[in-house]
Amino acid sequence: MPARTLGTCYYPEHWPEETWDEDARRMVEAGLTWVRIGEFAWSRIEPQPGQFDWGWLDRAIETLGDAGLKVVLGTPTATPPAWVVDKHPDMFALDAQGRPRGFGSRRHYCFSHEGYLEECRRIVTEVANRYGRNPHIRAWQTDNEYGCHDTVVSYSDAARRAFQDWCAQRYQSPDALNRAWGNVFWSMEYDTFGQIGLPNLTVTEPNPAHALAFRRFCSDQVVRFNRVQVEILRARTDAPILHNYMGREVAFDHFAVGADLDIATWDSYPIGFLEDRTPATEAERARFLRQGHPDMQAFHHDLYRAVGRGRWWIIEQQPGPVNWAAHNPAPLPGMARLWAWEAFAHGAEAVCYFRWRQLPFAQEQHHAGLLRPDSAPAPGLEECAQVAGELAEAPEAGTARGDVALVFDYASAWAWDVQPQGVEFDHFTICFAFYSGLRRLGLNVDILPADADLSGHALVLAPGLATLPQGFCDGLTGTAILGPRTNAKTTEMAIPVPLPPALPGLDTAVARVETVPASGAVPLAQGGTLQHWIETLDGDAEVIETTADGAPTLVAAGKLHYLGGWPDAEALDRILRRACAAEGIETLDLPDGLRLRDTDTHRFWFNYAPEPVRFAGREIPAAGVLWEDRP
Amino acid sequence: MPARTLGTCYYPEHWPEETWDEDARRMVEAGLTWVRIGEFAWSRIEPQPGQFDWGWLDRAIETLGDAGLKVVLGTPTATPPAWVVDKHPDMFALDAQGRPRGFGSRRHYCFSHEGYLEECRRIVTEVANRYGRNPHIRAWQTDNEYGCHDTVVSYSDAARRAFQDWCAQRYQSPDALNRAWGNVFWSMEYDTFGQIGLPNLTVTEPNPAHALAFRRFCSDQVVRFNRVQVEILRARTDAPILHNYMGREVAFDHFAVGADLDIATWDSYPIGFLEDRTPATEAERARFLRQGHPDMQAFHHDLYRAVGRGRWWIIEQQPGPVNWAAHNPAPLPGMARLWAWEAFAHGAEAVCYFRWRQLPFAQEQHHAGLLRPDSAPAPGLEECAQVAGELAEAPEAGTARGDVALVFDYASAWAWDVQPQGVEFDHFTICFAFYSGLRRLGLNVDILPADADLSGHALVLAPGLATLPQGFCDGLTGTAILGPRTNAKTTEMAIPVPLPPALPGLDTAVARVETVPASGAVPLAQGGTLQHWIETLDGDAEVIETTADGAPTLVAAGKLHYLGGWPDAEALDRILRRACAAEGIETLDLPDGLRLRDTDTHRFWFNYAPEPVRFAGREIPAAGVLWEDRP
Amino acid sequence: MPARTLGTCYYPEHWPEETWDEDARRMVEAGLTWVRIGEFAWSRIEPQPGQFDWGWLDRAIETLGDAGLKVVLGTPTATPPAWVVDKHPDMFALDAQGRPRGFGSRRHYCFSHEGYLEECRRIVTEVANRYGRNPHIRAWQTDNEYGCHDTVVSYSDAARRAFQDWCAQRYQSPDALNRAWGNVFWSMEYDTFGQIGLPNLTVTEPNPAHALAFRRFCSDQVVRFNRVQVEILRARTDAPILHNYMGREVAFDHFAVGADLDIATWDSYPIGFLEDRTPATEAERARFLRQGHPDMQAFHHDLYRAVGRGRWWIIEQQPGPVNWAAHNPAPLPGMARLWAWEAFAHGAEAVCYFRWRQLPFAQEQHHAGLLRPDSAPAPGLEECAQVAGELAEAPEAGTARGDVALVFDYASAWAWDVQPQGVEFDHFTICFAFYSGLRRLGLNVDILPADADLSGHALVLAPGLATLPQGFCDGLTGTAILGPRTNAKTTEMAIPVPLPPALPGLDTAVARVETVPASGAVPLAQGGTLQHWIETLDGDAEVIETTADGAPTLVAAGKLHYLGGWPDAEALDRILRRACAAEGIETLDLPDGLRLRDTDTHRFWFNYAPEPVRFAGREIPAAGVLWEDRP
Ligand SMILES: [Zn+2]
Ligand SMILES: [Zn+2]
Ligand SMILES: [Zn+2]
Repeated sequence: MPARTLGTCYYPEHWPEETWDEDARRMVEAGLTWVRIGEFAWSRIEPQPGQFDWGWLDRAIETLGDAGLKVVLGTPTATPPAWVVDKHPDMFALDAQGRPRGFGSRRHYCFSHEGYLEECRRIVTEVANRYGRNPHIRAWQTDNEYGCHDTVVSYSDAARRAFQDWCAQRYQSPDALNRAWGNVFWSMEYDTFGQIGLPNLTVTEPNPAHALAFRRFCSDQVVRFNRVQVEILRARTDAPILHNYMGREVAFDHFAVGADLDIATWDSYPIGFLEDRTPATEAERARFLRQGHPDMQAFHHDLYRAVGRGRWWIIEQQPGPVNWAAHNPAPLPGMARLWAWEAFAHGAEAVCYFRWRQLPFAQEQHHAGLLRPDSAPAPGLEECAQVAGELAEAPEAGTARGDVALVFDYASAWAWDVQPQGVEFDHFTICFAFYSGLRRLGLNVDILPADADLSGHALVLAPGLATLPQGFCDGLTGTAILGPRTNAKTTEMAIPVPLPPALPGLDTAVARVETVPASGAVPLAQGGTLQHWIETLDGDAEVIETTADGAPTLVAAGKLHYLGGWPDAEALDRILRRACAAEGIETLDLPDGLRLRDTDTHRFWFNYAPEPVRFAGREIPAAGVLWEDRP
Repeated sequence: MPARTLGTCYYPEHWPEETWDEDARRMVEAGLTWVRIGEFAWSRIEPQPGQFDWGWLDRAIETLGDAGLKVVLGTPTATPPAWVVDKHPDMFALDAQGRPRGFGSRRHYCFSHEGYLEECRRIVTEVANRYGRNPHIRAWQTDNEYGCHDTVVSYSDAARRAFQDWCAQRYQSPDALNRAWGNVFWSMEYDTFGQIGLPNLTVTEPNPAHALAFRRFCSDQVVRFNRVQVEILRARTDAPILHNYMGREVAFDHFAVGADLDIATWDSYPIGFLEDRTPATEAERARFLRQGHPDMQAFHHDLYRAVGRGRWWIIEQQPGPVNWAAHNPAPLPGMARLWAWEAFAHGAEAVCYFRWRQLPFAQEQHHAGLLRPDSAPAPGLEECAQVAGELAEAPEAGTARGDVALVFDYASAWAWDVQPQGVEFDHFTICFAFYSGLRRLGLNVDILPADADLSGHALVLAPGLATLPQGFCDGLTGTAILGPRTNAKTTEMAIPVPLPPALPGLDTAVARVETVPASGAVPLAQGGTLQHWIETLDGDAEVIETTADGAPTLVAAGKLHYLGGWPDAEALDRILRRACAAEGIETLDLPDGLRLRDTDTHRFWFNYAPEPVRFAGREIPAAGVLWEDRP
Repeated sequence: MPARTLGTCYYPEHWPEETWDEDARRMVEAGLTWVRIGEFAWSRIEPQPGQFDWGWLDRAIETLGDAGLKVVLGTPTATPPAWVVDKHPDMFALDAQGRPRGFGSRRHYCFSHEGYLEECRRIVTEVANRYGRNPHIRAWQTDNEYGCHDTVVSYSDAARRAFQDWCAQRYQSPDALNRAWGNVFWSMEYDTFGQIGLPNLTVTEPNPAHALAFRRFCSDQVVRFNRVQVEILRARTDAPILHNYMGREVAFDHFAVGADLDIATWDSYPIGFLEDRTPATEAERARFLRQGHPDMQAFHHDLYRAVGRGRWWIIEQQPGPVNWAAHNPAPLPGMARLWAWEAFAHGAEAVCYFRWRQLPFAQEQHHAGLLRPDSAPAPGLEECAQVAGELAEAPEAGTARGDVALVFDYASAWAWDVQPQGVEFDHFTICFAFYSGLRRLGLNVDILPADADLSGHALVLAPGLATLPQGFCDGLTGTAILGPRTNAKTTEMAIPVPLPPALPGLDTAVARVETVPASGAVPLAQGGTLQHWIETLDGDAEVIETTADGAPTLVAAGKLHYLGGWPDAEALDRILRRACAAEGIETLDLPDGLRLRDTDTHRFWFNYAPEPVRFAGREIPAAGVLWEDRP
């Protein structure tokens, strides 16, 4: 069982060399194990084409390592210097409006640009050659936050050529592609692969099959880009290789990238995310303004535990206000500790605060660190040190397997992004809603890909899973609730005939779908409503729930259920409780803001509420963490 | 008197040939008369330049025709195949931001591109040569939904050159154009026609005279494009020629296009339109979510009856949920029947449901048909069959002339789009508000162009009619209410001096206009308010209504009235009732959602409300239709 | 002491020559002194390159001058004719999306285009040569409304080259620039000045140092452009030179442009500005819909008194509804008089109504004038004539110095625009909030630049002043309240270390900032809240106010205060009253909508409310003005 550890992100190139020693000493003093460096330093490593300046980095690694820190070294490919851009003036991604996304910040490259990929091969090889066997380098990070700032999808000429080639490989002939996409519809048939354009700037919506194929391609290009780096590193180091995924970034398949890596890490900014990417009501936004949404972090923890096949970290943990959201509140006292403990309870091996010291210049100058710009401690440092102290009590990483599995599927995210049919339909949002429903019942949840072995889970939920893999239902052993919109599409984004969901032994078919605004929600016989997405179910399956008008909404054959709509919180709660009861899974009735997580040995309680909470004899302060032996 | 008939839209090229026969049989069985085909099939008719594949289309027509169906054949020019685009890479429209609107969906052409027009001449000639005398082809449709997806206005180089030429023909000399537009204002004077640009991407707003001239030109280009097709068809067929206009599409003059055609048809999507283009309150959006706005369909029926000079169809009728609005609810049971009967009551000769079978692939895969994708009946089919049965009782198309005429004018729509002066001022919106006011009184309304003979109408309304045609007032015989903003502009988009409205015998002048948000509405002495647009009226005309402060708002000379502002519903109701009373036109006080329409022989009642309604001894169920002998 | 005078803006080129005489006569009759002409007439002065038509302008000046009017002649450089554009097709500004902002309206030039600047030199020289000694020309205006329609910032190639040169001059070496901007952050370091791009179209936000440098450069280009004209005029005329600044236009440094001019003038559109650019609540927007915000005009008056070093005018005064806002209500009767008197009370030498006669064609045809398009008097004319009559009573321009100084700083406006950190943080908005707070207390305020001599003001407020000039605090003699966010940045847009505000003798440091939506406002111990921006203050300074939780928010050392957040109206009122009391400045408790302004001899009362107001024995009607001897 690996140890629970702490760390931070550090940029020696940003600070005078004479401060490195003291910084390293204070990191160790604060209880940190890890220090991540290097991922934005290309212009300092290779200031001119082919001219390398290794000295400063050699000394930085030596200083940090000799102080007792383990170094994570990043490849610097997220920030190519100006001279790289001069060599490859067409290396930029193009946005959907056709505008180049140029130099002057970061991630200014198109994943399909062969010239840039060659530059990456070169610099990664150079860095790996130099540090691959360095004993202080204990892990490698590829690039930085693939996809951040909407950088997966590019409409460049390089992308277009690569997409045409990708299509040629997938479909083999234009006729096969035309048939697969249904291009006969509006005379959109191609004679040659060279005619295929990218699905932007069309007069009205492009063919969703075209759009989905392009989204698959874009994801594949990220996998390819990452794999190039991994292969170079593998040949030169035995240290584990990781990437730092960004929260709610679903434009590429993290499972596919993760398959080439050893550890999944993610960047957790609970308060920034509540403002800019968490599905939440206005009341939740106000209530959790300085804490983040009580389920957003856990969702990602459980997701990346799967992406990392059990091994995962937070490699960037918000320690104070950030700079990039529309508003940037400060965390409630205690949250920097709570977030770390919640990660550990979900099995994290490491939590690294971003960043060590607030940098007083450039884009992130208002992003808090563990230290203030004047090197005085920021509030996060004390909480970090407190966690370090507490780790002695509970040192081992690991968590309990969940009774419940929730399937999350990147291809479905693309499918519904391409064709929501009603503006609210979004894969992340519906999965997050189901996840929150489970969390409010006090359950451990495993988030898994569609092709995972689900046989060990007593309850499996798969809302909005566009296409069921072959044999999916055969692999289920407990209760399963599929739908809404599950198995609703072929892999080529068509409606299958016979009609969905076409589940073995379950006689139900989606005869019709409708999408509605709030005013069109449909009351259910047992309370609550279907909202956003409502299906009309045909067939003779056993009816478990109906609308107030008697139309079936939840049907079953034995343990296999299909849910024909998007339940609101009240209805979802009832449906989940009934399913848990059927499987003998104990559920709780947690007060608002309180969450829990079990490991094999302990039960952890987390109070996201801004006031103390009492529950079953416990009193937990605002932003408080409590752990006890597992019941 | 032509018969009332039903039909559908069918795409043989989308389905295996072995299904055509059965489809045709079921269409006939459902009581359908018409089947429209072919309008998106160019890539199957001419798969390669100059290589035609007629076989499948010959057989499809034969199959449908022999089953007893009358075929409407569309020219395929709305969807040029990829090879046409390869030949004419600059044939795309450019949007206002200067971006080409490319291949990959439909309507990807600029009306001003001569090369593409030549391709259209060629393909229409080929199709007409082959099928012009085919006995099963009983009507022709040109292109598909001119203007849909905002495709009338293009900022391409082709459009620019054509606009310069259009200006040269209209104005003859740059000096004349400069004077007409008032280009001296900001030194915008041109020395040559070749300097004239399109009115997009200017620093601040362009000259409204420039913008209006461009909008006229854009409309003229549609008329020209359509006429090219009509002339080819006329020489080769005796069947009537029609076009399918799209709801609330006002970027080109439908009367002008219609003058070259035999029948006007329109595409009616009541529920989609309520979501995306109907002026409605939030309460109306919620109440009529699954029915559509009670006046939106009728407005278009009455409009297209005029465009078609009495002959009109619905050629695409929503039968279930569509795919293209932000939300896509299902119709209440009964609405697919109600919509058809409402069209017939307004004089439609045919109502064709779109589409026969829901297509499981490509852009419209979530657009319901009369059949489900698996060929099982969708709910619309039964309602369609019910209408077919009921037609026996009331077989003849035709309706009663209205007592009231409402003038609708495309040039005014462009004028107020160019220069609303207050963001709410929109020609469609004000005309629709007046139309709704009349409908709530139970009146038959004729919607007519500004140059129509209005002498037979006891009451004429002309709100927001930018420029009165010569002699307009001389042609009035009953009560007329003009304004607000009527005759407010010269044909060159200037304020006339003497000041508007300059009506014969009516001593009133608009001394000042103001536009206000909701908080600035002006109370009227008799109740209600003026909203959005408020005029200060000078002169000695008889004052009929005033503001609470005593300023004249409705003035008259005999039967000729001028209304100096936009009345809210309460004020409009009072004004209309008084005018009707003066002309002895009977008005009713209909409950919310109930509407009626008289033919020469019958009175039809339509209940758009989601609950049953009682009125004067009748009880009409939700989504119900009732007809009785005319009182 | 100069006289208080009235005037108007007139465009002889828009009207038949035979009307000029009568127009001039009526202007004089209405009591006008000034008439501004010529600023959009380039196409009539020089219809073809190098061919001049002076005759009409000679005659117009003669007609106006001989009637007794003083003429302000504008240089016509805001509206280059089509032939200028033909010569310099790349002279347009490019917007942030890279699109040229072309011909067809006005201000269609990039300040950095050398070719266009040369054309300006030429035409200004020609005009100045002809009229520099003309006795009727009593003032000159350069160009028109620099910056209007967002025209200061241009992303053209010309701008890029000029910016690279500007950088080379400012920083001398790429390394120095890299250090100054902190380009090491994301490997953004430049090797040559030629690599520097403009800060648009970056993947995520550009370096704020880069962005701020570009904004400084853009402002400098306006100063340079204006100075070229001033130097030509100075050599040819002794008349004063002015420019007409636009309300709430902060993209260039008006103090810097003003330093080259003799008189500052501004264009005051109170009602249009309330709709489109005044920070106001919804309640204020409704209440002051037809009056404008009670502080917006006065703010600009006090600002431009400083820009003009005591000499200032309104050169364009709204007389009725305008045409360019989303809604364009008419002023309450009396407002056209009130606005003029308010300007005079603040020291204006002249108030010129825009425009003389409403022009019935082109872009501004719905912009009211003093005359209607048919030459009948519009409501503004009578109010103008009333003011003219009243000026006899109170003829002298001049006002009283304020006890309070508010610092307004253009560079701070750019800094916070570049990096608001929370979306609400805006320099104009916070300064306006503080100004309003002072006005509600009945105070005379001087708005001054950061480098002004502040020693004569008993109370100095400097909210959001990004960088304090050297010695700023030494120049203070009374009470000063600095902050929030004052001295928060180095001149290169970094956070200074030691931490801000680093005020002499005041032991406080901003340890942390947070920005919050409305739900995150922080209650203060004495009532009200901090909103938008909240700082955590460290240090041993005397604590004057705290949050409800006891955190210091207002600290002091003697009379020097630092305010660590943005107070709401309640808190601001308390803070200001306390500061005034400490300095013995009398404050009032004005009813909503009532404002006052003292001159050396009189106290003027202005009632912006839509109903009469009673205060201390006075009754002032809606839109009323009252003046009395100064107490
Ligand atoms: Zn070492
Ligand atoms: Zn036949
Ligand atoms: Zn003279």
